Amino acid sequence: MHRTKVKVAEDALDANTTIAQANRGDFDRDGVSVVNLMSAPGAGKTTLLESVFGMGLGDVRAGVLEGDVQGSMDADRIAHFHVPVTQINTDSGFGGECHLDANMVRSALGTLPLADIDLLVIENVGNLVCPAEFRVGEDARAMICSVTEGEDKPLKYPLMFRACEMVVVNKIDLLPHLDFDVDKLLYNVETVNPGAKHQLVSARTGEGVEAFRDWLVGVGEREKATA
Amino acid sequence: MHRTKVKVAEDALDANTTIAQANRGDFDRDGVSVVNLMSAPGAGKTTLLESVFGMGLGDVRAGVLEGDVQGSMDADRIAHFHVPVTQINTDSGFGGECHLDANMVRSALGTLPLADIDLLVIENVGNLVCPAEFRVGEDARAMICSVTEGEDKPLKYPLMFRACEMVVVNKIDLLPHLDFDVDKLLYNVETVNPGAKHQLVSARTGEGVEAFRDWLVGVGEREKATA
Repeated sequence: MHRTKVKVAEDALDANTTIAQANRGDFDRDGVSVVNLMSAPGAGKTTLLESVFGMGLGDVRAGVLEGDVQGSMDADRIAHFHVPVTQINTDSGFGGECHLDANMVRSALGTLPLADIDLLVIENVGNLVCPAEFRVGEDARAMICSVTEGEDKPLKYPLMFRACEMVVVNKIDLLPHLDFDVDKLLYNVETVNPGAKHQLVSARTGEGVEAFRDWLVGVGEREKATA
Repeated sequence: MHRTKVKVAEDALDANTTIAQANRGDFDRDGVSVVNLMSAPGAGKTTLLESVFGMGLGDVRAGVLEGDVQGSMDADRIAHFHVPVTQINTDSGFGGECHLDANMVRSALGTLPLADIDLLVIENVGNLVCPAEFRVGEDARAMICSVTEGEDKPLKYPLMFRACEMVVVNKIDLLPHLDFDVDKLLYNVETVNPGAKHQLVSARTGEGVEAFRDWLVGVGEREKATA
């Protein structure tokens, strides 16, 4: 007799993984690459995306999913660049959820023109803890760390820095006015995530943003290459 | 027949409230006032406390409870000021808890010399969402918002700004180098929390810190007055 054993999803993270895989299947079907973009509040995720969209992504057609506890200010800013954008608000759950999970992303998929984009950037809720715990079906994870936050953050929030293949170090235009040691930060990043890529940028002046744009374009072409 | 009806704690927040009340009872017994200090990662909680302890709190004897996902760097910094300090790490729970709750604080009470202090400052995990949802038995809540984070934060994280009676606006020494409108931030604070106190400070230069210190001393004297 043929016997099949099914492992029942045991907890919230198992359920999340199952739904993330379903999202992944939908993204694959439409040849969409997905970047999960994370950071602390105010590190400059939206400003960096504005800078990138201002430059353009070449042949890569992008869309954005905005995650916020409340409001749609970031989505409004992104919409100015004629990029399809959907806002998810997490404030219906438990006083406001502090992260996006796979099911929240799934609930938004129907509103996104997946067939017409190559790259979906998911701007997560500003938080250095829980967003790193919930995969949403992404190809790559990037995080932004601002030089105003101090060099110790990789050691204090190791899971976030470990979960990302790209660490963007933002607000470098402020370095002359800070007691901040970039080498110390990068040493701490390397300590928790050996070999992680990093890029120094100023989303405000545009310095270094082209290199991050090129990385995004590279991710955008991953699924195209295999589709 | 006398009947007693006991409402069973229904969920995690109910249980948290019950434990917060137990903490409150212990603080009251020893005449300890408690401040729950919250902010985004890197807003400057520890640097502000260093600045305050450098000035001294007059007759108010302080202790500190440090909440971090991992590490004890902040506790080590505070210990230099000969202030009793206990570190709580939240990384045993679910990939790292993003906030302190009443039970975590309760687990640390035995390590704190409550009988010998007047004021306990609890430095929460850096996060603008969940810490505001969990009372821990505190008298007052303060949050630090840095001018590098943008003026929109009260609108994006309203519960945090609403939960606090004192909003400290930090890093004002950087204002000349930023496109940041302090009035716009304060307008947004007033929108979500009418009448909230605020104090502009630079923990780095010390500007404004004395006024925050005075507020802390005032809280420290609340329980003394009633004890």
